[in-house]
Amino acid sequence: MKTTSSMSMKHFLNHGRHIPLLFVLEIAFILIFAFCTEYDDGAHSDRAFNVSSTDQENRIQHYYAMFQDVHVMMFIGFGFLMTFLKRYGYSAVSLNFLIAAIVLQWATLCQGFFHTLSSHGEHGTKILINITNLLNADFASATVLISFGAVLGVTTPLQLIVMALIEIAIFSGNEWYGLEVIQASDVGASMFVHIFGAYFGLMVSLVLKRDFTSEKEGASYNSDIFAMIGTIFLWLFWPSFNSGLAEGDAQHRAVINTYYSLAACCIVSFAMSSLVSKENKFDMVHIQNSTLAGGVAIGTAADMMIHPFGAMIVGSIAGVVSVLGYRFLTPFLHRKFGIHDTCGVHNLHGLPGIVAAIVGAITAALATEKEYNYSLYRQFPARAPMAGTPEFEEIKSHFAGIHPGQGRTGAEQGGYQAAAMAMTLVVAIGGGLVTGMILRLPIFGKVQKEHLFNDALSWELPDEEEEHHAPTNTEPMFRSHMQNEHKM
Amino acid sequence: MKTTSSMSMKHFLNHGRHIPLLFVLEIAFILIFAFCTEYDDGAHSDRAFNVSSTDQENRIQHYYAMFQDVHVMMFIGFGFLMTFLKRYGYSAVSLNFLIAAIVLQWATLCQGFFHTLSSHGEHGTKILINITNLLNADFASATVLISFGAVLGVTTPLQLIVMALIEIAIFSGNEWYGLEVIQASDVGASMFVHIFGAYFGLMVSLVLKRDFTSEKEGASYNSDIFAMIGTIFLWLFWPSFNSGLAEGDAQHRAVINTYYSLAACCIVSFAMSSLVSKENKFDMVHIQNSTLAGGVAIGTAADMMIHPFGAMIVGSIAGVVSVLGYRFLTPFLHRKFGIHDTCGVHNLHGLPGIVAAIVGAITAALATEKEYNYSLYRQFPARAPMAGTPEFEEIKSHFAGIHPGQGRTGAEQGGYQAAAMAMTLVVAIGGGLVTGMILRLPIFGKVQKEHLFNDALSWELPDEEEEHHAPTNTEPMFRSHMQNEHKM
Amino acid sequence: MKTTSSMSMKHFLNHGRHIPLLFVLEIAFILIFAFCTEYDDGAHSDRAFNVSSTDQENRIQHYYAMFQDVHVMMFIGFGFLMTFLKRYGYSAVSLNFLIAAIVLQWATLCQGFFHTLSSHGEHGTKILINITNLLNADFASATVLISFGAVLGVTTPLQLIVMALIEIAIFSGNEWYGLEVIQASDVGASMFVHIFGAYFGLMVSLVLKRDFTSEKEGASYNSDIFAMIGTIFLWLFWPSFNSGLAEGDAQHRAVINTYYSLAACCIVSFAMSSLVSKENKFDMVHIQNSTLAGGVAIGTAADMMIHPFGAMIVGSIAGVVSVLGYRFLTPFLHRKFGIHDTCGVHNLHGLPGIVAAIVGAITAALATEKEYNYSLYRQFPARAPMAGTPEFEEIKSHFAGIHPGQGRTGAEQGGYQAAAMAMTLVVAIGGGLVTGMILRLPIFGKVQKEHLFNDALSWELPDEEEEHHAPTNTEPMFRSHMQNEHKM
Repeated sequence: MKTTSSMSMKHFLNHGRHIPLLFVLEIAFILIFAFCTEYDDGAHSDRAFNVSSTDQENRIQHYYAMFQDVHVMMFIGFGFLMTFLKRYGYSAVSLNFLIAAIVLQWATLCQGFFHTLSSHGEHGTKILINITNLLNADFASATVLISFGAVLGVTTPLQLIVMALIEIAIFSGNEWYGLEVIQASDVGASMFVHIFGAYFGLMVSLVLKRDFTSEKEGASYNSDIFAMIGTIFLWLFWPSFNSGLAEGDAQHRAVINTYYSLAACCIVSFAMSSLVSKENKFDMVHIQNSTLAGGVAIGTAADMMIHPFGAMIVGSIAGVVSVLGYRFLTPFLHRKFGIHDTCGVHNLHGLPGIVAAIVGAITAALATEKEYNYSLYRQFPARAPMAGTPEFEEIKSHFAGIHPGQGRTGAEQGGYQAAAMAMTLVVAIGGGLVTGMILRLPIFGKVQKEHLFNDALSWELPDEEEEHHAPTNTEPMFRSHMQNEHKM
Repeated sequence: MKTTSSMSMKHFLNHGRHIPLLFVLEIAFILIFAFCTEYDDGAHSDRAFNVSSTDQENRIQHYYAMFQDVHVMMFIGFGFLMTFLKRYGYSAVSLNFLIAAIVLQWATLCQGFFHTLSSHGEHGTKILINITNLLNADFASATVLISFGAVLGVTTPLQLIVMALIEIAIFSGNEWYGLEVIQASDVGASMFVHIFGAYFGLMVSLVLKRDFTSEKEGASYNSDIFAMIGTIFLWLFWPSFNSGLAEGDAQHRAVINTYYSLAACCIVSFAMSSLVSKENKFDMVHIQNSTLAGGVAIGTAADMMIHPFGAMIVGSIAGVVSVLGYRFLTPFLHRKFGIHDTCGVHNLHGLPGIVAAIVGAITAALATEKEYNYSLYRQFPARAPMAGTPEFEEIKSHFAGIHPGQGRTGAEQGGYQAAAMAMTLVVAIGGGLVTGMILRLPIFGKVQKEHLFNDALSWELPDEEEEHHAPTNTEPMFRSHMQNEHKM
Repeated sequence: MKTTSSMSMKHFLNHGRHIPLLFVLEIAFILIFAFCTEYDDGAHSDRAFNVSSTDQENRIQHYYAMFQDVHVMMFIGFGFLMTFLKRYGYSAVSLNFLIAAIVLQWATLCQGFFHTLSSHGEHGTKILINITNLLNADFASATVLISFGAVLGVTTPLQLIVMALIEIAIFSGNEWYGLEVIQASDVGASMFVHIFGAYFGLMVSLVLKRDFTSEKEGASYNSDIFAMIGTIFLWLFWPSFNSGLAEGDAQHRAVINTYYSLAACCIVSFAMSSLVSKENKFDMVHIQNSTLAGGVAIGTAADMMIHPFGAMIVGSIAGVVSVLGYRFLTPFLHRKFGIHDTCGVHNLHGLPGIVAAIVGAITAALATEKEYNYSLYRQFPARAPMAGTPEFEEIKSHFAGIHPGQGRTGAEQGGYQAAAMAMTLVVAIGGGLVTGMILRLPIFGKVQKEHLFNDALSWELPDEEEEHHAPTNTEPMFRSHMQNEHKM
């Protein structure tokens, strides 16, 4: 029980290396925020005085409810979805919490940096903070949490923190290039978040090669029900994820399309699960994960005129693809390539993300002014005619809100959508491979075999025997809010 | 471990009959949606262009937060409330999920069909989809989930799916007739959802006659705490359920009344539970269920001028009735009539629904123009004078928003409210009996005695022994995301 | 099994004393509400007719989403956070539920009474009920739930109910005096709720002297994960707690500041936890609690111009203080003064509350018109010049919204902020000591040693052995919705 100071130091050097990193990181965040950020107008006491209080409110009131839904998805949704492992629940929900809290700050800076780049210093060089920065940072955290799912149980906290820092830097650049330069439409971030996070994580997993099996990599009855908390909250709030940054009729449409896509995906996932499982039973893995694939698969086209039945077709395809992926593809990739994918993120985020990108490209290619009216140029700004052209002046005379675009045709826009997908795949795969190699550096540690999928790596665990039986005379309970008294 | 193809086929024919039904169902939904639905104006890209973006937003922004609260109630609230059974948690939360996802699509069509009937083709024959359709479909799903509670653990998935399809068709007709023809006021749907769902489910249970006892029909320590997640979310978001479709001061009032009714009901339920239970302890069944009865009982009158103290009286009565129902009536109905009611929906939805209907009828009968001013005619449209009468012209000169009604007196409106209750009881009981008989057809299967209240019917369960003890050398864990590798 | 009537009566007199109290309480609430409350204009059918429906909606629509977030924090957040004890989960979540439901009604009356006092009968003597009363009552319930945390597991339900009633009466007076007379700014109620609730509870605990140890005062694997549901929902919705009653840019700022304070606090808490724990592991107690300290610590200054980096510094300090408090101070206070603090509320609410008060006083003292423009006088109304002074007229000519104040300087406002903290500490400590002495009266009962931290005090518990093994022939399961049949 006695811990000598030299043992402490040894532990610290072996298992406590994340401690100084976390302190340094937070100090760095504080310093960068101090010098590089400022409240945006609607949140600034000085400037807010000059606009009507209603206008100021609109910003926060418009975004807040959906922002909180997305917030719940990140911390409850992802956090509890990953508690399905019977002996990794503490780590799943807590490391999800830690990683996301790091990303909220780091993504504010990375995304803000690229955004400032785009605005050519119009608003000065400071990153202006308002509710949409918070929402975007939450979206960004999803990327890392998806990658976390691929390596759940096989990395040290230190490795996860480093992965999060590298991944967000690359993610922000890819997202910015895709949205601002390629001008792809991806309202639910199925390409920039889901494809990116899934393939990045799979490549990290490939390089880490933690592919031996462990009897701890399974669920218990209670852990499966905890995981359903995550599943259901993700499923419920996915319409907010896909429409949180949209406005007006596009937002309304994104909610409707996501709702029906998810409903269809749920039904098809249950049917497929029963079809491919032993004795035609349902498989909790499919119910916990594949039912959500419809939210990913409709993400890119969620605000387009895909119609409810179109959304339901997309959701159904996602359910089929996802269950088949769990049943056949993930074991195959593991056997052939040694890619271990603990949560099966390839089937929940990777493949459905590719479905989303393809559906988005096709829907964008087919979009016409007849169907969208002038909203077409709000939906796909690059399709607006170039400044100075007669077409632009003609539209401007009817629709003052138009901005000059690049005069893309529908097919061209579809092509650019596909290009964004391809770029994202390449960047995610390359970034993941490099990051995986960095994480193999001895300084970041490595999970020993007996600690794979095991909370004992990072937590003092309660003695479960005492829960069910009368207290024995052996070792007293360790964990208690009053515990330290007895130790000191 | 080896599964021969003939065994597979036998299983499929016996236990996999829900699989083709689910696929056919989803294909049918997609086809009907394709031909019979269209985005409503606020969600349509073409038409949205012609109205100001603020107006378009209002629709979704006005309803969205409460819609999501109701959404959480259906999937987390009902889903987790039903996890109280120690060995039926997978099925409770997952079948709740599947059934509700089916209903979201099916109710959109059924409710849309009747709504189109009312509008006499004014807007064409297509069902126009906006956020209120989504909210109404969520309300509809509550009906089936209540009935599910009555037969929890004693039906096959196939039986549940068929029940949901039949029930929603009947429910939609009854709701439409009650609201549009009888013109009853039922803002929280205590009659059309709660009474209907409860008595429909009880009658199905009566006909199914699954009344033998099972040692699995009990809770475990953890399952009871999981169930409290459902209870508390239902309790918290019930004000949104009762006010989600109301507007202005009526919505404000519905929130206030529901809040205080639930608070009073909670206190009285604890007191009653302690009063009637062994050694004056509390009973988890009452805490999980009766505390919610106040939300049901105030539902019909929630937006009326019942005042906070009136709402508190109603909530208190509901608490008394509900606990007494659990303690005395449910066992009596089981013993005398063989009605098994797994979740006690009669005490949470049935009896409190009848309290709600009576309170609603009385409050409506007492409503005067003195108390409501001209809002009376917005609250009870049938009380507005008939078109062309001098009374109508007089009111119209003061209150342009009035529509011609039927000139009902308060007492008449109260009578129509009571008539809506009576009709709902008759339709629910008749519909439930017929549906129960259909579900007894051999084609829909039957739960064998050893599978009552038992997840093993539909799920491969993890081997729990391994959770608490060191891994033994016996059979390895089955469930794992990587599992299939070892089987193939 | 047989319970004779005389045994019942003995039990009732010993363990059922809370039953008549609850009934009398609810009847009293109903009577007081009947005579002393009325719907406020926006919720009143009569008066609502005279204002545009949009205006009426704004009230409920403006507050509702954040109100529901706070509602979730009280019942899910606090309720599940306290389920960490392995054998006190039923009591934690259920008594939290009961106590909060009592407070919602009682606080409406107490806060309404003081508010009516301030308005000098302008609006008559009735308490006018609208959505902000509901939100304020939810805030008030936090106070009692914090105190509950200090004495979790060591009090009878009766003692808790009495504590809630006394505490809310004192709390309401202190809050009113601090906000209306001292005119302190405390948007997130870190002083009036967190400091008050923590020190009140600690003093009750001191007087109750339930300081012996119990092997039941520990967590189980599942109970710790249940507790994380509470932690995460509290963490997610804390921005709503700190900004729910603010408006415009101040609300926007409160959201941003709380978000970054919590993110920083999370990182620092993980680092500190690992630093001070055995083998540099993480400690679930710290993760469940200290990660939230940043929400408390930024509470008073949340709507001030403290900037994101300032909020992150405050959150980081809170994380350090809170973990050190759990590790060293709580055991010390227990050993030296016999103060048992089951949930460690001193480290989550007490110390971070004091940090908040100090940060608030300093930030208020440094606030200048240069930084805030005229918003300064909305943020700190007492800093506005007195009526009739030339300064007041000068400002009024630019900013019509100003109300005359007391012409306080920044330093004076800072001093008043500190005075509000001091008063709150004194009132909470005095009130807690007196309340503790009252709770020691024999009439309120006392938890016997074997029932400390033990649900068996108030609940019939399921026989857990049956959960994991085949049913034995011993005593059948007790708890079932159908149970009573077998007993009667």
